[in-house]
Amino acid sequence: MGSENRGESEKTSDGSICGHDSLHRLLRAKLVPQVFQEVSRLLLGLNCGKALEELALPESATSLSSKHGFDLQGFSFEADKEQLREPRIVRVGLIQNSIAVPTTAGFAEQRQGIFEKLQPIVEAAGASGVNILCLQEAWTMPFAFCTREKRWCEFAETVDGESTKFLQEFARRFNMVIISPILERDVAHGETIWNTAVIIGNHGNIIGKHRKNHIPRVGDFNESTYYMEGNTGHPVFETAYGKIAVNICYGRHHPLNWLAFGLNGAEIVFNPSATVGELSEPMWPIEARNAAIANSYYVASINRVGTEVFPSPFTSGDGRPQHADFGHFYGSSYFSAPDASCTPSLARNMDGLIISDMDLNLCRQLKDKWGFRMTARYDLYHDLLRRYTQPDFEPQVVSDPLLHKEAS
Amino acid sequence: MGSENRGESEKTSDGSICGHDSLHRLLRAKLVPQVFQEVSRLLLGLNCGKALEELALPESATSLSSKHGFDLQGFSFEADKEQLREPRIVRVGLIQNSIAVPTTAGFAEQRQGIFEKLQPIVEAAGASGVNILCLQEAWTMPFAFCTREKRWCEFAETVDGESTKFLQEFARRFNMVIISPILERDVAHGETIWNTAVIIGNHGNIIGKHRKNHIPRVGDFNESTYYMEGNTGHPVFETAYGKIAVNICYGRHHPLNWLAFGLNGAEIVFNPSATVGELSEPMWPIEARNAAIANSYYVASINRVGTEVFPSPFTSGDGRPQHADFGHFYGSSYFSAPDASCTPSLARNMDGLIISDMDLNLCRQLKDKWGFRMTARYDLYHDLLRRYTQPDFEPQVVSDPLLHKEAS
Repeated sequence: MGSENRGESEKTSDGSICGHDSLHRLLRAKLVPQVFQEVSRLLLGLNCGKALEELALPESATSLSSKHGFDLQGFSFEADKEQLREPRIVRVGLIQNSIAVPTTAGFAEQRQGIFEKLQPIVEAAGASGVNILCLQEAWTMPFAFCTREKRWCEFAETVDGESTKFLQEFARRFNMVIISPILERDVAHGETIWNTAVIIGNHGNIIGKHRKNHIPRVGDFNESTYYMEGNTGHPVFETAYGKIAVNICYGRHHPLNWLAFGLNGAEIVFNPSATVGELSEPMWPIEARNAAIANSYYVASINRVGTEVFPSPFTSGDGRPQHADFGHFYGSSYFSAPDASCTPSLARNMDGLIISDMDLNLCRQLKDKWGFRMTARYDLYHDLLRRYTQPDFEPQVVSDPLLHKEAS
Repeated sequence: MGSENRGESEKTSDGSICGHDSLHRLLRAKLVPQVFQEVSRLLLGLNCGKALEELALPESATSLSSKHGFDLQGFSFEADKEQLREPRIVRVGLIQNSIAVPTTAGFAEQRQGIFEKLQPIVEAAGASGVNILCLQEAWTMPFAFCTREKRWCEFAETVDGESTKFLQEFARRFNMVIISPILERDVAHGETIWNTAVIIGNHGNIIGKHRKNHIPRVGDFNESTYYMEGNTGHPVFETAYGKIAVNICYGRHHPLNWLAFGLNGAEIVFNPSATVGELSEPMWPIEARNAAIANSYYVASINRVGTEVFPSPFTSGDGRPQHADFGHFYGSSYFSAPDASCTPSLARNMDGLIISDMDLNLCRQLKDKWGFRMTARYDLYHDLLRRYTQPDFEPQVVSDPLLHKEAS
C-alpha cells in the first residue's frame, strides 16, 4: 500500500484529506476482503451473512457512463417473499451533476449546457429500465442563492416550463416517472417564487408538485432571500410505480417533515439536495438512514457535485473576506432502506447515476416487524405540539429542590 | 497483516465476522494513519482539521480498569468561546456491563453480584470526576423478559428500593448525579410494574423518575408482558450539572419521543438500552446521532454486554426451535453531539466505562447556527397529528389520473 500514501496528508480541492472519491471505495482499496466485509456489514447496516446485491446494468448504460465520464452504480434491496402479495420491485435512479458551463455565461447557455450534459445520463437511466428517476435540487441552474443577487430569479420557470417539457419527452420515451426539482415561478400568485419538485408521470403528464417546506437560514444558504416556506403540505404521489414523496434539501433536518410523508403513506421519499462539505458532510450518512428506519420507507438522497464560482464575490456571515464560491458540493448520493441497510454512495467529485431495485413490500414488512406506528402514541405528541405552539408554553421541568443549596 | 487474517471468515460468538471489539479499533489497526484520519473524519462526523480530544484520566481510574478488566475511554466535546456566558463543561459517564453470576443462581445472589461488579466501575467514574453517571436499562437483573416467566418480576423495586440506596451512597461520596434505570414496582398503584429511570441528585436525594414511553413488541422483546407504556410524559430534570432527560431503550426508534425531550429543554438525553446484534446493530450508530443533530442536544447511548442464558428454554416467534439465550448484547456505548460528531464506542464484548466532557453551550450554539426550532413549523404538525389520531384520517394523496389506463 506504500505508494498509495503519497500526498494523503494534503487536504484536496474536494474537501477530503485523501482525495478519495468515496468512503466505500477507499475502504475496499485499503482493507483485506474479510475485514472489508465486516466493516461493510456495520457501515451499510447489513445483518450477518447478508450481502448487498449489485445490479448487472446493460452495456448500453455502462458505455454511456464511460463515454461521458459519469459514475454509474447499481444495487438491489430485497424483501421476504409473501404468500398473499407478489413482490413489488421498482427500479429507482438518482442523478447528481455539476453545472456545465461557467456561471459567467449567459443564462440560456448555462441552462442548455445542463440539458445537454444530462441527456446521456437520463438515457443511461432509461436504458437501464429505471422506473422512477429523480434529479437534484434546482437542477436547471447553479445554486446561486449564496450571492443574494436577484438576477438569478430569471431561472425560475412555471411548472409546465422549459425544463418540464425537456423531461416529459424522456418520461414518455422510457415510460418513466421523473421528479424534477426546479425554481418555480408562480404566475397565478403575482410571480411568487418557490423551491418546487414537479412530478412527471410515466406518460409525460404532470401529476402534481410539492413546494419545499423548510427553508434554511444558515451560512451561504439563506434561501429565504428568494423563496419562502411551501404551502403544499406533505403530498404523497400515487404513481404507476408506487407512492412517492419529496423532502426537499433542508427538510431532511426536520424529523417531523419525514414523519408527515410517512403518515400520508409514502413508500419512497426523495431528498434532492444541494449542500457542501464543511457544513453538512457529517450529517449526510445519518439523517436519511434514520428517516428510513423510523418511517419504514425507502429514502433516496441526492446531492449536487463540484465547486461553483460566481461572477461577483460575496461574504458568508462567517467573518471571512469576500470570496466567489461557497465550498465543495460533495455528491455522495445514495439509497437507504427501512431495514437500516443502505447502498454505498456515488462519488464525491464527479457526475453520477445510482440505480437501485427496491421491493416496496419491505416497507410493510418492517412496519409489521417493529411496530413503530402501533407504539407511537401520537396523541401524546399532538397534545404536546399544541401546547408548544402557544407563546406561554411551560416546559415539563422537574428541578432538584436542593439546587439552591449548591455551594459551587 | 497476513497473520491477522486467520479465522476471520468464522462468525464469532459476539456476532461479528472478525471477532473485533470495536469498529473504531479495527479500522485503526488496519489502516495507515492518514487514511484512518480521513475515515474517522467521516465516521465520527468531524469537520476537516478537527480532532476529537482524548481525556487524560487519573491513574486511580485506569488502574481500576486494568485490575477489574473493564474498557475505559475518555473524550471531550468542545464548543466555541462565548462573550456573555462562561463555558458549561460537564463530565458524563456511562457504564455498560454483563451480568455477574448465572441466571440459575438465586435472585439475591444475582443482584448482589451485579452490585459488586459495578462498585469498582462506579468508583472509577467517581475518581475521574464524573458529574453525571448513567447505568444501563434494568441494570439490577438479567434482561429476562424474553422468557415470559413472571417470576422475574421479583426484581422490581420501589423507586427508593435497594438499588437506589446502593447508588445514593456513591452520589453523595462523589457529588455525582446518577441515573438508575430499574424495573419499578409501583405499590401505590396496586403493585403495577414499570420500566423506570430513577434520577438521584448529587446530594443523594431522589429528584424524580421517568417511565419508559414506548414499549416494544418485537421478537424476544415483547416487554408488554411485564409493563406498559409510561405515564410520566417527557420530563426534563434540572440538576446541578444541567438539564437532562432519559429516553429508555425502544423509545430511541421514535423521533417524536426525542423531540419531546428537546421541546422541554433537555441538554443531554440518556438512552439506556438492552439490544442484541441481529436485531438492531445496524441502527445503533444512526438513531442517537440523528436525535442529537435534530434536537441540538447531546445523546448518551448505553447498551448492555454479553450473552445471557436462561434456565428454561423459550421460543422467539421466528420459527426457530426453543433455545435458552436471545443473542449477543453488543455494548458499543457512545456519545453523540449536536454538531453531528460522536465518540468511538466502547467494546462490543466487555464491560466498560466511557466518559466525555461536554460543553453544554454547544447546544444553543447549534440552535443559533442551524435554526431548526425556528424553521420547524410545529403548527403544521400539530394539525396533522390531530387529524391522524382520528379513525377516519384521510392521507394527503395525489393520484396520477392516468393510473387506471395502465396496460401493465
